[in-house]
Amino acid sequence: MSDQTRFTLNETDLPKFWYNVMADSPVTPAPVLRPDTLEPVTPDFLSVLFPMELIMQEVSTERYIEIPEEVREIYKLYRLTPLIRARRLEKALDTPAHIYYKNEGVSPAGSHKPNTAIPQAFYNKKAGTKALTTETGAGQWGSALAMACNFFGLDLEVYMVKVSYQQKPYRRIMMETYGSQVFASPTDLTNFGRSVLQQDPNSPGSLGIAISEAVEVAATSGGKKKYSLGSVLNHVLMHQSVIGEEALKQMDLANEYPDVVIGCVGGGSNFAGIAYPFLHENLKNGKRTRLLAVEPTATPSLTKGVYAFDYGDSAKMAPVVKMYTLGHGFIPPSIHAGGLRYHGMAPSLSAFYDAGLIEAVAVRQKPTFEAAVQFARTEGIIPAPESAHAIRTAMDEALDAKKKGEKRVILFNLSGHGHFDLGAYEAFLNGKLEDYEHPGEAIQAAMSDLPKVSVLA
Amino acid sequence: MSDQTRFTLNETDLPKFWYNVMADSPVTPAPVLRPDTLEPVTPDFLSVLFPMELIMQEVSTERYIEIPEEVREIYKLYRLTPLIRARRLEKALDTPAHIYYKNEGVSPAGSHKPNTAIPQAFYNKKAGTKALTTETGAGQWGSALAMACNFFGLDLEVYMVKVSYQQKPYRRIMMETYGSQVFASPTDLTNFGRSVLQQDPNSPGSLGIAISEAVEVAATSGGKKKYSLGSVLNHVLMHQSVIGEEALKQMDLANEYPDVVIGCVGGGSNFAGIAYPFLHENLKNGKRTRLLAVEPTATPSLTKGVYAFDYGDSAKMAPVVKMYTLGHGFIPPSIHAGGLRYHGMAPSLSAFYDAGLIEAVAVRQKPTFEAAVQFARTEGIIPAPESAHAIRTAMDEALDAKKKGEKRVILFNLSGHGHFDLGAYEAFLNGKLEDYEHPGEAIQAAMSDLPKVSVLA
Repeated sequence: MSDQTRFTLNETDLPKFWYNVMADSPVTPAPVLRPDTLEPVTPDFLSVLFPMELIMQEVSTERYIEIPEEVREIYKLYRLTPLIRARRLEKALDTPAHIYYKNEGVSPAGSHKPNTAIPQAFYNKKAGTKALTTETGAGQWGSALAMACNFFGLDLEVYMVKVSYQQKPYRRIMMETYGSQVFASPTDLTNFGRSVLQQDPNSPGSLGIAISEAVEVAATSGGKKKYSLGSVLNHVLMHQSVIGEEALKQMDLANEYPDVVIGCVGGGSNFAGIAYPFLHENLKNGKRTRLLAVEPTATPSLTKGVYAFDYGDSAKMAPVVKMYTLGHGFIPPSIHAGGLRYHGMAPSLSAFYDAGLIEAVAVRQKPTFEAAVQFARTEGIIPAPESAHAIRTAMDEALDAKKKGEKRVILFNLSGHGHFDLGAYEAFLNGKLEDYEHPGEAIQAAMSDLPKVSVLA
Repeated sequence: MSDQTRFTLNETDLPKFWYNVMADSPVTPAPVLRPDTLEPVTPDFLSVLFPMELIMQEVSTERYIEIPEEVREIYKLYRLTPLIRARRLEKALDTPAHIYYKNEGVSPAGSHKPNTAIPQAFYNKKAGTKALTTETGAGQWGSALAMACNFFGLDLEVYMVKVSYQQKPYRRIMMETYGSQVFASPTDLTNFGRSVLQQDPNSPGSLGIAISEAVEVAATSGGKKKYSLGSVLNHVLMHQSVIGEEALKQMDLANEYPDVVIGCVGGGSNFAGIAYPFLHENLKNGKRTRLLAVEPTATPSLTKGVYAFDYGDSAKMAPVVKMYTLGHGFIPPSIHAGGLRYHGMAPSLSAFYDAGLIEAVAVRQKPTFEAAVQFARTEGIIPAPESAHAIRTAMDEALDAKKKGEKRVILFNLSGHGHFDLGAYEAFLNGKLEDYEHPGEAIQAAMSDLPKVSVLA
């Protein structure tokens, strides 16, 4: 065990390969289906939205995929991110546990999202794409892709959920500073947006609507524009594996190995990013690290959802995948962790959870912010509300270790900073934060509309 | 020359000593005077506001002062900060110059300010202080001291300029999250605040007023509260020397040595932090690096001020020092770089400028934001408006090197990020940013009220 607090590595230690968990998956992946026919998709179908190299990564079973030099050059602007031992938090909790965190909040866009935004922009540029479309809720993903598109000279249209567009002008300005166009969704620029506005001119928008708008624009652009997604898909999760690959080396520097690895989950990408390289160690090298995904009680897809085929978006335009879902029509409560308000979960993560390879827990909003404030007051960093879910659970693990009088090595992913979320902190400090349970009836209702798939695989 | 982009060091390389430039100063420092008598201050006078160890540091001529282990432990939460070669910016400028920057924006409070906030809180705690008072304009300093006071269990009252308090609620919430009390200055809690409000109930406040309120509260607390200042003083600048001490080692890793070192100046602390260790090399080891301080044309204390004794605050309650000043009554235009809106300049920096040991240049607001946006689009990071002044000048140096066809190694300090300044970016992107020259008549008027000092030294 090292007596250091901060574990940094040199640029020469920057990973040269992404780790592709599908090479080691003990679970056969369910096929991805077309939303119209519910038949398996073909690469041709996907190629309307994505460049071929990303599609090949999506279905690849190669264990390591080389990170292009052009991508590594940009990773170097902020990677390797530091691994920190949270000594001050440990002391405050008076726990025998050792708590480590990987700080992805140091990226220019403020979260782990650039790890996949950069390669997605790169492969699109390489394939001749001129422009991308995407959606964003709270704005972490939109900011990251805006930065990446700017680096590769791609235009970007961001469909930003209208309520966030109004409440978070700073996120919008950040994307505009990087040169992107940002629209408040629903817009009158798409058929789907217009149909929503016709029914409700004051619609506040939703991630489902914004996805549908971004997909529609790309799909009807005659090949000029492609679409980009910030989570859920295999290739997206794979790009995030740089987090865990670095953490493996840094834990080695710390001369410790985690008993439990923790991350928050919305679509699943930051959790997969830190956890899958440790899953590889579990599957191939006899390690027994617990991998613990944390979701809000307000959108409990793993802990209260079903494992079934469902649409990726509310408008049924996105591919149908087998995943833990609350139903594509599920409208989550307005919790502040905007990045965790997705009805489904990455298919790979869903499959591993189903197979018992990973664990899940749901936490409420108020104890999550209690943890966030305690973290800020011990470690200094004000975390994103999403990341605070991981902090809550890391603290609960540390307190459990204390209760049992056992040493435990805990590693969690601090996926981003909360500089654009201070309104939520104010609500918490003023006692105005609500504490959502999962809305049972809403889940029941949303699940009544799952697609009827006659499965093949 | 290294082919790396990012130069990181291990925790074990964290400096163990601050560098005190006063040990090497070829200029005899002018005495600090009491504002009431204009006679030299005694330690007793200062001890009303500051703990003795900081006063001793203020007058010390020891070259290296050991950084307490308790302070180093907290530095480790974010230090050593990375040194980055701005390869993408160099390419965009098509310059033969090499541009390096030290990124202090990775600190939890978002700037270099914690480098001195942490030791100031530590020495106060050690001396038995229970609470500190301070002022803040844009909020960088207040956030840093709020974090530091929280770490050492000190209460903190922050007098925040009212117009900033209203325009930057996120900075206020950040301080509250760390557990501090924040007041919109002028308040009705102090004699001085009440007198201001009596004259103008709608006063937007100013840094001068806020300083006076914070000083009054500490001075009249019967020893219970001390006061803390975020720039200008010798001990503050010395604490910032960790920036330059690290940069020396990192430039060594890069196998280059800077021809010019650049920082923005308000009170002077971030510039001094990066520049003084290189000044030491100039004075003692025969190096000839140019040290270039950058100020806004709107508050051009070095380039348009006079070198004279003046009060540190508008209310004439703070000590009188010899410095480059625009006059303590100078009301700067409302530029977005709130941290650079000070009428004076650190005495040490003023003396070195007067002696020709450092250079200064003033830049306008619009070209500064042009540089900020180009930096964001090449290096990813959205800089603080203050730091953008250094970027503008670094780019001008790189373009000058290109014009002359010469290689030039440029190092600048990126003192903070601009996450709380995106309103200014929006104004720039919308063409609404004003471009201030120095207001000549305002300077003339403010200078007519300099104290008449019959100098001794």
